[in-house]
Amino acid sequence: MADKPPRGLADVVAASTALSDIDGTAGRLFYRGYDIHDIAGRISFEECVHLLQRGSLPTQAQLDSLVEELAEHRELGPTAEALLSYVAGSGTPMEALRTLVSASSVDDPDAGESGTAANQRKATRLVAQMPVLVARYHAERSGTTVPELDPSLGIAANFLLQVTGSRPDPRTAELFDECLVLHADHTMNASTFAARVIAATLSDMHSAATGAMGALRGPLHGGANEAVMQTLQSIDGGPEAVEPYVRQALEDKQKIMGFGHRVYKTEDPRATHLRAMSAELADLTGERRFYEMSRRMEQVVLDVKGLYPNVDFFAASVYHALGIPTDLFTPVFAVSRMSGWTAHVLEQYADNRLIRPDSEYLGERDQKWVPIEDR
Amino acid sequence: MADKPPRGLADVVAASTALSDIDGTAGRLFYRGYDIHDIAGRISFEECVHLLQRGSLPTQAQLDSLVEELAEHRELGPTAEALLSYVAGSGTPMEALRTLVSASSVDDPDAGESGTAANQRKATRLVAQMPVLVARYHAERSGTTVPELDPSLGIAANFLLQVTGSRPDPRTAELFDECLVLHADHTMNASTFAARVIAATLSDMHSAATGAMGALRGPLHGGANEAVMQTLQSIDGGPEAVEPYVRQALEDKQKIMGFGHRVYKTEDPRATHLRAMSAELADLTGERRFYEMSRRMEQVVLDVKGLYPNVDFFAASVYHALGIPTDLFTPVFAVSRMSGWTAHVLEQYADNRLIRPDSEYLGERDQKWVPIEDR
Repeated sequence: MADKPPRGLADVVAASTALSDIDGTAGRLFYRGYDIHDIAGRISFEECVHLLQRGSLPTQAQLDSLVEELAEHRELGPTAEALLSYVAGSGTPMEALRTLVSASSVDDPDAGESGTAANQRKATRLVAQMPVLVARYHAERSGTTVPELDPSLGIAANFLLQVTGSRPDPRTAELFDECLVLHADHTMNASTFAARVIAATLSDMHSAATGAMGALRGPLHGGANEAVMQTLQSIDGGPEAVEPYVRQALEDKQKIMGFGHRVYKTEDPRATHLRAMSAELADLTGERRFYEMSRRMEQVVLDVKGLYPNVDFFAASVYHALGIPTDLFTPVFAVSRMSGWTAHVLEQYADNRLIRPDSEYLGERDQKWVPIEDR
Repeated sequence: MADKPPRGLADVVAASTALSDIDGTAGRLFYRGYDIHDIAGRISFEECVHLLQRGSLPTQAQLDSLVEELAEHRELGPTAEALLSYVAGSGTPMEALRTLVSASSVDDPDAGESGTAANQRKATRLVAQMPVLVARYHAERSGTTVPELDPSLGIAANFLLQVTGSRPDPRTAELFDECLVLHADHTMNASTFAARVIAATLSDMHSAATGAMGALRGPLHGGANEAVMQTLQSIDGGPEAVEPYVRQALEDKQKIMGFGHRVYKTEDPRATHLRAMSAELADLTGERRFYEMSRRMEQVVLDVKGLYPNVDFFAASVYHALGIPTDLFTPVFAVSRMSGWTAHVLEQYADNRLIRPDSEYLGERDQKWVPIEDR
């Protein structure tokens, strides 16, 4: 048995990837060699999907082709359609969506196929369907119907149209598009790693995506953005009340959600963009409360704990300003991250080895069976 | 970044556990310190569930209490019940069962609860429901109904009753019970590791179990037992035809399923028991073909490749002799392994740290965004 590495595999290299890279000390994130600061706000989510899944920023012809493929496959298949009303009736959105992603495997036109081209198509279809699954789920539980998808709009604007019921103004749609780009990939985060562990058994793309959905919902991962919003909403009194709340919470050894990251030792570069977006949306909407509270909170947490906000922190006030219900924040994360998960699964399949680590045994030894009547 | 470990995290310690231990060189497997050779055939699957989930071989009173709890919770909840007919209509059993395990989270009486006692109850219920889910799924797709569960029988005998439609003789039930014990846990196998990665985000027990279902179906993991049976059935001519088939397949660089294991350098101790069971069932049923073929195959593969049979190899002829349809072999593995998965999730929750490894970046660097019209 090898030496025991740090708990939680911190700093242990689990896989090679050409998809994303993090310089945690400098606070930099790259998608296929492009600095996130260079592309955020400049490329659409669709271009980002092309970059991750197909290896390059698309030409206009490549983008047109991808957009057509996404549009063709975004409606739900018969099994997911049939299950929608049953799963929308109870539980949390991420539970329902985990079940729907799993169920949709049999609806895929390439179901049962495991060749490279089939997996590429499955990856694109999962990205196409995820926003529609979230919007349809939300409509179903709300007893409403979703507006028709507008073929002139991209994934981001169509999602806001279907979830909020009204067509977003162009700048709002651009800001949400940038959110989707910012959340698309992030090296071996827990949900991506879960997807790769599952795919490495040569199980199917939907099994990997379903496992990733399960991991993302955890409060130590994607679930944190909802927790941030709940914290902001639970503080009575606005920005002035933030400092005493945070100091008391930290004194009581409570964790303040949305701060710190295993990999970044400085500010998460995604937080830089999301902070600016939160500020811009405060100006656009005139609703400054949660932005101001967030600004105050990050200052206090940095002062007291030396922790920087992570991607989840300003995502909360941004999504709230966009009119997205709090319990859909983690599903929105999944809408974006599905692009990274599926790209990682394609990469895993392309050069696969079963991911099967060792463990350290710390239990009883030399136990001897005795008949039940003598125990 | 740390040194790059072997691919697939081979020999890298990913977690500590008190559940099971393997001595790969000596070919030994222990559940909580009990050698598998000491307990296989001596303890029931229910006793094994108690050992794994609750830490000890039960006294009679503890066993009675667990059996009562298992019996109380084995019927499906309303959501899983409602979905059954939709998911049984298409796809593979493991896809349908992955969806049903996911869907059943909302049916759990402790849904939304994450305390230790609630998680312990969820773990027990998942073990109780898994065999019934498989049997009900099989009946649904076959257009039949399952016989009533017999309260005087254990999990193993009730499962055979429901899947085959007839009450197994006591020795047959004992043999299948031993199969369930042999498959219950196996350190950081890929599905268990996937479950722990998911649970380590503090996501729920059903998310972890659903991810594990997805990993188990892969042909490099639980899916191998079905592949073994398909291979045996594809060889025309019985035992005499095995040697030329295997030699040709190996010459053609085809993988022979059911051989070799990352951890064992000698015979998998579970294979020792399954070989004996396969022999006994050949005697009991008078149907010796697949047992004899398996014996011949293991000799040829050992001669030519130096590989030993793993747990999946003799499980194939055993399950076939028990009357289990080939495409339910991996689900049967899940019926047993659910006990290990859930015990590992409980262990992960009890001393949690996010499992978030590093990656090695091997892609492009220093890419610069250019407008789409200039690409």
